[in-house]
Amino acid sequence: MESHFNSQLLEKAVGELSKLPGIGRKTALRLALHLLRKDPAEARALGESLIEMRDKISYCHTCHNISEEETCPICGDTRRDRKTVCVVENVKDVITIEATHQHQGLYHVLGGLISPLDGVGPSDIEIESLVNRVRDEKIEEVILALSPTIEGDTTNFYIFRKLSEFPVKITMLARGLSMGNELEYTDELTLGKSIQNRIPFS
Amino acid sequence: MESHFNSQLLEKAVGELSKLPGIGRKTALRLALHLLRKDPAEARALGESLIEMRDKISYCHTCHNISEEETCPICGDTRRDRKTVCVVENVKDVITIEATHQHQGLYHVLGGLISPLDGVGPSDIEIESLVNRVRDEKIEEVILALSPTIEGDTTNFYIFRKLSEFPVKITMLARGLSMGNELEYTDELTLGKSIQNRIPFS
Repeated sequence: MESHFNSQLLEKAVGELSKLPGIGRKTALRLALHLLRKDPAEARALGESLIEMRDKISYCHTCHNISEEETCPICGDTRRDRKTVCVVENVKDVITIEATHQHQGLYHVLGGLISPLDGVGPSDIEIESLVNRVRDEKIEEVILALSPTIEGDTTNFYIFRKLSEFPVKITMLARGLSMGNELEYTDELTLGKSIQNRIPFS
Repeated sequence: MESHFNSQLLEKAVGELSKLPGIGRKTALRLALHLLRKDPAEARALGESLIEMRDKISYCHTCHNISEEETCPICGDTRRDRKTVCVVENVKDVITIEATHQHQGLYHVLGGLISPLDGVGPSDIEIESLVNRVRDEKIEEVILALSPTIEGDTTNFYIFRKLSEFPVKITMLARGLSMGNELEYTDELTLGKSIQNRIPFS
């Protein structure tokens, strides 16, 4: 849809909105027209919240999670288990794992996975800083929580090798049946892993 | 997903984004994290364009289309046919019809359709101002371009009655086969209309 909106301002807003991932021009127009029907305070609150978020949020110097301070609230929380570090690909994974309430330790956000095809090598992601943390902070367990993909496995293996000189326990997330999914619809690879890694019935 | 983002600013931006229609919290988080990865100028351009659009766009005093001035560019365009007015439900319909390049006249945006079930009566939409325009501007043809729904038909009929005292030709959009659709998949009502309103083969 390449159409004139009879308003440069609407055109501009639609243009900016449609730069967002998954938002095409049709959706962008729908969102813009929605805002035009609402109180001006609503557009202002939205616009200002985006600008303020981007201007003030930066990254934690320790774990590389997003943070409004040099040290993020998780790294700064003294009640958490400071000897266990969960390694994740990105910021969203921290949010996802936090929502499970099953990890009481700290995080380390790599900011990507090793992917030779995409030109991403070990030095492009936060592996060296992880190694330094394990050494300097006397980390006792590193939980590898990367996606079960070729890139995730490659990165897991690289980190495993890099940390092998330290007295640290290295674990990874279990791979097995998804809760609530029928056995018959589970892929063979996952099913195979879940047999290999079977656990005591309790 | 009711999770903590470890950042009030991210939380706020996600909250504002998810007020938009069709944007849930998951999508809102994805959009916010996208902006966090991009240059701050990008979030600023988006935020400011939304605020400026909402603050500066208002409605044309004549046709009620969105406009940055009292008179919109269409109403102000002297090359257009000022004796033909196309009546539409909303602003988006103007954009849609303009994209066809088949209407050279002006518009009148009702801002809704008569819908007793939703408590929308004739006085809640811009019908009186349409009647005034037909009288004062010596309109020669009113094209009813409302959706072929109960509400659209009700509104069409109401407008038709209101305009019956004026020497104005009243037309409505043709109803018939959709271009490119198989005859066999056209619903019976539409097919019936397309037989009743058959046109000379040329």
